[in-house]
Amino acid sequence: MKVGIVMGSKSDYTVVERVEKVLGGFAVDYETRIISAHRTPTVAEEFASGAEQDGIEVIIAAAGKAAHLAGVMAAYTPLPVIGLPIKSSTLDGLDSLLSTVQMPKGVPVATVAIDGAENAALLAVQILSVKYTDLREAMRTYKENMEREIIRLDAEFRK
Amino acid sequence: MKVGIVMGSKSDYTVVERVEKVLGGFAVDYETRIISAHRTPTVAEEFASGAEQDGIEVIIAAAGKAAHLAGVMAAYTPLPVIGLPIKSSTLDGLDSLLSTVQMPKGVPVATVAIDGAENAALLAVQILSVKYTDLREAMRTYKENMEREIIRLDAEFRK
Amino acid sequence: MKVGIVMGSKSDYTVVERVEKVLGGFAVDYETRIISAHRTPTVAEEFASGAEQDGIEVIIAAAGKAAHLAGVMAAYTPLPVIGLPIKSSTLDGLDSLLSTVQMPKGVPVATVAIDGAENAALLAVQILSVKYTDLREAMRTYKENMEREIIRLDAEFRK
Amino acid sequence: MKVGIVMGSKSDYTVVERVEKVLGGFAVDYETRIISAHRTPTVAEEFASGAEQDGIEVIIAAAGKAAHLAGVMAAYTPLPVIGLPIKSSTLDGLDSLLSTVQMPKGVPVATVAIDGAENAALLAVQILSVKYTDLREAMRTYKENMEREIIRLDAEFRK
Amino acid sequence: MKVGIVMGSKSDYTVVERVEKVLGGFAVDYETRIISAHRTPTVAEEFASGAEQDGIEVIIAAAGKAAHLAGVMAAYTPLPVIGLPIKSSTLDGLDSLLSTVQMPKGVPVATVAIDGAENAALLAVQILSVKYTDLREAMRTYKENMEREIIRLDAEFRK
Amino acid sequence: MKVGIVMGSKSDYTVVERVEKVLGGFAVDYETRIISAHRTPTVAEEFASGAEQDGIEVIIAAAGKAAHLAGVMAAYTPLPVIGLPIKSSTLDGLDSLLSTVQMPKGVPVATVAIDGAENAALLAVQILSVKYTDLREAMRTYKENMEREIIRLDAEFRK
Amino acid sequence: MKVGIVMGSKSDYTVVERVEKVLGGFAVDYETRIISAHRTPTVAEEFASGAEQDGIEVIIAAAGKAAHLAGVMAAYTPLPVIGLPIKSSTLDGLDSLLSTVQMPKGVPVATVAIDGAENAALLAVQILSVKYTDLREAMRTYKENMEREIIRLDAEFRK
Amino acid sequence: MKVGIVMGSKSDYTVVERVEKVLGGFAVDYETRIISAHRTPTVAEEFASGAEQDGIEVIIAAAGKAAHLAGVMAAYTPLPVIGLPIKSSTLDGLDSLLSTVQMPKGVPVATVAIDGAENAALLAVQILSVKYTDLREAMRTYKENMEREIIRLDAEFRK
Repeated sequence: MKVGIVMGSKSDYTVVERVEKVLGGFAVDYETRIISAHRTPTVAEEFASGAEQDGIEVIIAAAGKAAHLAGVMAAYTPLPVIGLPIKSSTLDGLDSLLSTVQMPKGVPVATVAIDGAENAALLAVQILSVKYTDLREAMRTYKENMEREIIRLDAEFRK
Repeated sequence: MKVGIVMGSKSDYTVVERVEKVLGGFAVDYETRIISAHRTPTVAEEFASGAEQDGIEVIIAAAGKAAHLAGVMAAYTPLPVIGLPIKSSTLDGLDSLLSTVQMPKGVPVATVAIDGAENAALLAVQILSVKYTDLREAMRTYKENMEREIIRLDAEFRK
Repeated sequence: MKVGIVMGSKSDYTVVERVEKVLGGFAVDYETRIISAHRTPTVAEEFASGAEQDGIEVIIAAAGKAAHLAGVMAAYTPLPVIGLPIKSSTLDGLDSLLSTVQMPKGVPVATVAIDGAENAALLAVQILSVKYTDLREAMRTYKENMEREIIRLDAEFRK
Repeated sequence: MKVGIVMGSKSDYTVVERVEKVLGGFAVDYETRIISAHRTPTVAEEFASGAEQDGIEVIIAAAGKAAHLAGVMAAYTPLPVIGLPIKSSTLDGLDSLLSTVQMPKGVPVATVAIDGAENAALLAVQILSVKYTDLREAMRTYKENMEREIIRLDAEFRK
Repeated sequence: MKVGIVMGSKSDYTVVERVEKVLGGFAVDYETRIISAHRTPTVAEEFASGAEQDGIEVIIAAAGKAAHLAGVMAAYTPLPVIGLPIKSSTLDGLDSLLSTVQMPKGVPVATVAIDGAENAALLAVQILSVKYTDLREAMRTYKENMEREIIRLDAEFRK
Repeated sequence: MKVGIVMGSKSDYTVVERVEKVLGGFAVDYETRIISAHRTPTVAEEFASGAEQDGIEVIIAAAGKAAHLAGVMAAYTPLPVIGLPIKSSTLDGLDSLLSTVQMPKGVPVATVAIDGAENAALLAVQILSVKYTDLREAMRTYKENMEREIIRLDAEFRK
Repeated sequence: MKVGIVMGSKSDYTVVERVEKVLGGFAVDYETRIISAHRTPTVAEEFASGAEQDGIEVIIAAAGKAAHLAGVMAAYTPLPVIGLPIKSSTLDGLDSLLSTVQMPKGVPVATVAIDGAENAALLAVQILSVKYTDLREAMRTYKENMEREIIRLDAEFRK
Repeated sequence: MKVGIVMGSKSDYTVVERVEKVLGGFAVDYETRIISAHRTPTVAEEFASGAEQDGIEVIIAAAGKAAHLAGVMAAYTPLPVIGLPIKSSTLDGLDSLLSTVQMPKGVPVATVAIDGAENAALLAVQILSVKYTDLREAMRTYKENMEREIIRLDAEFRK
């Protein structure tokens, strides 16, 4: 099981790094690429078209501003594509969010919060867990640990 | 393979109907419920907690305004949850979109466009197709048909 | 008379601390908890459901991003719930505000300004003062002191 | 127990009527007035200053555009004030919402959703129920009925 | 000829200081006050009601967030009132702007840009110059100097 | 005493007509012109440059979308310029508002609410009344009548 | 000289028709196609890649929602690309505008107003007129006629 | 071949400098001026009116806030005008963007992203390349280099 991660620019890696970390925690394999929808459209097309063949089962696309990367992926592959809008330098990421989520009929992008790197990874895990029952179990544990951690913080705080 | 569809109010069915139609086209079974995150929280909890047991593999939650329904689903289940923001009477659905997509770390909701019913269904199909190879094939065909249809419309238009 | 304060994450305490301080100034008892609508939904439900029993008369819920915490409280209790939207890292808190205030018919949340910690506390005091006449008197004094302070600042400034 | 309702213009009554209806359902007395923060500021001041004396325990203020009415009420009374932003002809009510909710430190307004008339009334009931235990009971029943109604609609829908 | 300047809080003086400086440059007398629409409503009313008597011919009101100060001034005086929206800590001053400019029919506020201190002062000068022909002349000179300065900067830049 | 009214397009007259009506009620003379900042820039320049000579004392400029008309007026005349943002077909007039109000340092435009025709006229009257004491008196009467009318409506409503 | 016009969906033709009409008025040849960035990505790529060869000198791309069409064109061709954001069913076209204009460094799209069909055509004419001096002359005439028409309307209105 | 660059204020040069750098890289001549639409309207008019005569073939106008500079240029010249919205101190540049892009029918401005200096320059090059075939070639090379650079970064990153 493998997740394909693409980011529109090298500078997005500060966010994307957190995607990798969460996937790693679930022992989910991933392959991260710098691919620009606008500057390397042919590479984007090739990557998306070949993703299924390459054993990729879910794609995560991270991009900012007029963030078309997730949309381009979704155009060329039947695989589920997760859009991770990156906060751009102006407009607080509203442009990235709308460019990613407001996809036309027929070509969905599963969009998570602006800069929501961990959630992009967790969503990928949830999608994979439809098939891989071990991951479902791991996801359940993750949620329980998260719950336990908040409960612990709460207990600590109340003292 | 079954998709659980929940909508926050009966009036959302004009949008949700299109979700069912697309799922039906892929011969994906679904179960649609009227469940309100705020007015029937216990039902919401029970539905989400029991969904996996009930054979549901993906949940689609449609809601408007301060749209918490998808978030509540995601809180109680490890299944992938798709959020479908419904255009509310004011603010053009921006409130629904932000309430659905801006989920905190740890609990993702796969958000599609405002009133993007077809895309919610297609995303569910794509997620299921990670496991069910027949659906992957059907999705590929769907994309090809869509492409062919636009090409046909284009050819017709050019005459 | 007791106010229940819940915050979605420990980091919200920098804002919530100011809620406590104002309540303390009115000698209103409070109990502060870290409870996440999405990560500890069962705790949230239990807290809200049991609040009335526990002697809580008003709940203040502070959360950011897709801020569902106040809504979850309001779903499970007949007590008045005050929503305190926390400025999230992106979108300047607009997501928190809309997620908190745009509640559907039947389940109100009394929303104050983004990061308006003092006002959340004062609103709780005003609500309690419907019952506790001493608090009404204290609130009147608070308003008079505030007025006097501005008048003093104005006089000082004009010199 | 009495709620004071003020609206900035006669045309707001199409929304405010729904406030009255909900309050009436709880047998809560109310007094509705047309008072403009800007066109009848003296009346506004007198109403707010005298509200407590007149036996009013909660004020609901409905206004649109640069909606100052709730703020003016809150300036002149220690009573809890509920702000009901009315959707104005342009900007979808965003101006009304921000003018009502973004109150400065010291003078809170308990804001509900844009055009959220029923919720303004229900919030008033919740506030009054801090003192009047009968209302708490009635509120609980209201919530239960609402829950039952959704469950009924859901059951009906599933058939 | 005198301009009344009111600001909602002492912290607004960093902006208001620039109003005074421009007025001083035109030898226009001014009186600056700290008056809060919400915390010192009676002072606000008295100031606005008495402004004409006190020889004030134009009022400038600077405030942030749910910025009602200019509106309150305009409610109590027939004098022209200039609204200066102050950038609040969240929402980039959009709340201040909309609260100031979107006044209902009958009670205008002459609104300038967010934090547009110099323009508030210049607008006051332009208004006064309807009566005082010397100020008209001074305004013309101000505009010419401004033009000359840009032309000088341009010439310098081009070298 | 004369007000110059300019509108960017003939279709704006449905709004501008209300400006004329209010000015007429105050017996203030006006001259209305269709002048486009972008399509007849030379006419705009000539009108603004010559306005003072032509006996105009205040200019009202009504325009929509990227509404530059008020700014162009203000660039070419030392007279006070009132900007009336017209609701454009998209974006609810937010573009018109921001294009009109966010003027750079040195060139103010006194902006009123989107489609706030009556207020543009009343602001012109208030500005003129700095010089013409009769208008001040008329303005006071206008405010009193407005107050009386609301009080009458309120009395009627309460019956 | 030929302009390539692409639209994302057949329904966009109600806007695009006005592009054709203006181009026709300048006797500029055009070729209009229905091409979807997401549903017919290969056609989009082929069209853009081959446009220069096909004698196209400027491309106009009209699309709504997450409007990627102009960006895809710009990715595959060195020709100037004009983006025409179409008002989508929700959000008033803000999504279309931001998706079109906020392009990343290296791949510009010359964006016009939401639904600004005529301006997209005129911009194409202005771009072509850099090369074709006849068009420059025609453009000048167009501007003069437009000016004359407004002047005529103004004269008529003043009577 | 020459590009005329105008900026509304000297402080915009930090952005405009990047325009010059890109144009320089293409050996395109440019002339940069500080011209304010509001403070030096006559200079603006003269520059725009004379631009064609002066051998300028494309104009780039950079301005912030109520950014009218590009619109003024477009009003006075038949040349293509590129609008570069500068991020203003408040509102994240949304005001600059809307003031620049939402031009009325008849007078287009080719708008690029907020602070999108490089893209403004590249668009100018693309426009010029309609006429100058060398520039078309250079543009193609630029795009190829850009593509190659991303591919190199990607390769490097994957190691």
